[in-house]
Amino acid sequence: MAMKKKPVTGMKDILPREMEIRDYAIGLIKETYRTFGFTSIETPAVEHIENLSSNQGGENEKLIFKVMKRGDKLAAAARSMAQDYSEHKEKGDFDAAQEDGADGSGRAGDVNTAGLSDSGLRYDLTLPLSRYYSNNASVLPSPFKALQMGNVWRADRPQRGRYRQFMQCDIDILGEPGIIAEIELITATTTLLGKLDFSKFTIRINDRRILKAMAAYSGFGEADYDSIFIILDKMDKIGLDGVKAELLESGYAEDSVEKYIRLFAALSPTVDGLRFISNELGEYLDENIARDLETIITSVEGVKSADFRMEFDPTLVRGMSYYTGPIFEISMDEYGGSVGGGGRYDEMIGKFTGQATPAVGFSIGFERIIMLLLENDFQVPGAEVKKAYLIEKGMPADKLCRIMELAKQEREKGIIINTSIMKKNKKFQKEKMEEEGYTEFVEFYTDREF
Amino acid sequence: MAMKKKPVTGMKDILPREMEIRDYAIGLIKETYRTFGFTSIETPAVEHIENLSSNQGGENEKLIFKVMKRGDKLAAAARSMAQDYSEHKEKGDFDAAQEDGADGSGRAGDVNTAGLSDSGLRYDLTLPLSRYYSNNASVLPSPFKALQMGNVWRADRPQRGRYRQFMQCDIDILGEPGIIAEIELITATTTLLGKLDFSKFTIRINDRRILKAMAAYSGFGEADYDSIFIILDKMDKIGLDGVKAELLESGYAEDSVEKYIRLFAALSPTVDGLRFISNELGEYLDENIARDLETIITSVEGVKSADFRMEFDPTLVRGMSYYTGPIFEISMDEYGGSVGGGGRYDEMIGKFTGQATPAVGFSIGFERIIMLLLENDFQVPGAEVKKAYLIEKGMPADKLCRIMELAKQEREKGIIINTSIMKKNKKFQKEKMEEEGYTEFVEFYTDREF
Repeated sequence: MAMKKKPVTGMKDILPREMEIRDYAIGLIKETYRTFGFTSIETPAVEHIENLSSNQGGENEKLIFKVMKRGDKLAAAARSMAQDYSEHKEKGDFDAAQEDGADGSGRAGDVNTAGLSDSGLRYDLTLPLSRYYSNNASVLPSPFKALQMGNVWRADRPQRGRYRQFMQCDIDILGEPGIIAEIELITATTTLLGKLDFSKFTIRINDRRILKAMAAYSGFGEADYDSIFIILDKMDKIGLDGVKAELLESGYAEDSVEKYIRLFAALSPTVDGLRFISNELGEYLDENIARDLETIITSVEGVKSADFRMEFDPTLVRGMSYYTGPIFEISMDEYGGSVGGGGRYDEMIGKFTGQATPAVGFSIGFERIIMLLLENDFQVPGAEVKKAYLIEKGMPADKLCRIMELAKQEREKGIIINTSIMKKNKKFQKEKMEEEGYTEFVEFYTDREF
Repeated sequence: MAMKKKPVTGMKDILPREMEIRDYAIGLIKETYRTFGFTSIETPAVEHIENLSSNQGGENEKLIFKVMKRGDKLAAAARSMAQDYSEHKEKGDFDAAQEDGADGSGRAGDVNTAGLSDSGLRYDLTLPLSRYYSNNASVLPSPFKALQMGNVWRADRPQRGRYRQFMQCDIDILGEPGIIAEIELITATTTLLGKLDFSKFTIRINDRRILKAMAAYSGFGEADYDSIFIILDKMDKIGLDGVKAELLESGYAEDSVEKYIRLFAALSPTVDGLRFISNELGEYLDENIARDLETIITSVEGVKSADFRMEFDPTLVRGMSYYTGPIFEISMDEYGGSVGGGGRYDEMIGKFTGQATPAVGFSIGFERIIMLLLENDFQVPGAEVKKAYLIEKGMPADKLCRIMELAKQEREKGIIINTSIMKKNKKFQKEKMEEEGYTEFVEFYTDREF
């Protein structure tokens, strides 16, 4: 049987040129974050299906690659599923329209396949980190500063530039309730981006509690917050008037909408804007929250080594419901979207451990950063000398040994030595190797001394 | 719902201490293999189920973690499976004893679950490399020297020290038919092991064609070779007499067994042994095969930089049926088993591409090497200065800014600075940080100048 040559749908083979940049970036990330006291950790790619489906993952829970049970457990589950299906079919239960199974429920149309799977591929690194921390907290330092670099998988609709397997790169600080954690996370991330030659990017920051206070101040009910924030989140696309129109269309009280929109209109994306909102919201907002956000902004700005702006952005929402405090996002002019973000999620770890643990994390969009570096034809700095040894076919053992000895000596100096048998079309062979970055060629013939 | 804290069965969380060694080893592997002209590549963790089940993977095909289809395709497959089950049940097809599904057939007892899955987690890096090469050969250099480091998954019975997710580290040379490929692979691997401070290990080498010629010379039929080699493979456990007894028990002709055993008894694990066998086998073995093996041994020995032995081992079998030429394995005195191995597999790539491509690979047992380094309390060389800043709670913004500036300056020098809020029990806090390798402490108080 001929085998399938292409990778599975939505995933990709990584070619040497991209891999060189990835390896360089991974090394730089580890080195940079290390100086901030972060330690690498790793969790398995496969997680319990119960954990993945625990409502911490938002929309991602609909995109899980589920792993089937094995052996007897699979047999029992499949038999039970088949019997359940037959019984319902006999009763005529399947006349009504059925769900399509894309909701992560495990019900695929008229068949309930949930029992067939006991695990799945992780869709992010945050949920596994929570499990890891609750499993290992007793042997981990406190606060615990973790660096994770690893692949995650999402069965998203395949589209250009977005893949179903991609690398995430997260730093998290667990066990530190104060803003020093936020300051360190943002400083570490911006330092890294600077080292990767990025400039003129913007860190936008907000706080989930300011978001809520602005909604409360305007007179919206708490039950409506999430729907309101989904509309607010479109600000950069549809503008203030668009947000206003959508809020009114959705049936929210006109005076609340007016009050809410006026607040945003009066705000500047600066520390002044933050002070204004703190004054304006009065008792709706603990003044420490605005002051802490100001301290984060001034501290990060104060020590910055890369060329970026930091902005207070009251329209920043961040999708995940688990955020509880400051939230932040990186945007780049040269890329029309977020290349990273994060925030404080003080309640998630407690769901595993039963004991509340403050936590804050920052994730960079590793794949987008690699894509930008590739597009900018990024050159890995300090690349080594690449030398090719072309060896005539039939080289006797003693001479071959001498060639290997030469190669050894040069390799010990860090020079890349690529040995190949000389081809008939030597010119073409050299040209191809030049494309791979080989700049020096040494030829060895069976009948010549060297 | 309380979540599950432990990783899924048979997989593990990697703690900071182990991760430090892993990161160091990964860096060293990439750096060392780079100087031999290998380039990093990566393939997706998920592969087509058809490829994984194509009989290239041997026993591993029974250990696949299968990934379920999604959406409508899953619904259709599940429905079809349920109907098939009901029909067979009505007919009473399930009275006889059933297979248990552990054979990779997809049939789990009385239910055929094969259609539910369209992909699975890779169980090695060799099959994905073949697919990768056939998919990308037109843009890859020739010969192509690939380095792969990545996780693989096998649903093995969980046991101490063996995990269901583990990292593999393979180097392969595709497109080079000559022994220069073998010499480079073995030299690269032994150079790496030397840099990791391993010594007194042994590289055992044999050739599948010598294995076969010895069996033919002794009068065994070709159909019996695989069964004979399985018995031969037990030599290190049961000895020459044990092998002889098992061969006789299995019913092979006594004179063949005698002749075969006499051959092994007469052999020394040296170049002399190789010459002896070449003479003895006469027309059963192309003399170039033994001479090539001799050249590999003398070349590798000639340039070795680590302290190891190289042995000709006529009893070395290597399990995988895809090997076609030289095969090799690393054993270590301090570890009672193989810590790596490989060989030539000239026919595998052709199964994808339809065009024969010579190939040879060497895989090191990454997890075993890490385990040995951990057991030997390996210290990562050149570790940086680790300094802790302890900051009194309530530090005003301007002073905090100055602390961050100090941290910045030290981090730029490569010093690891870990900032934390001072705890009530400062002594205990410092002791814990000392355990993490922090040797210097700087304390910042709100009411003191710094």
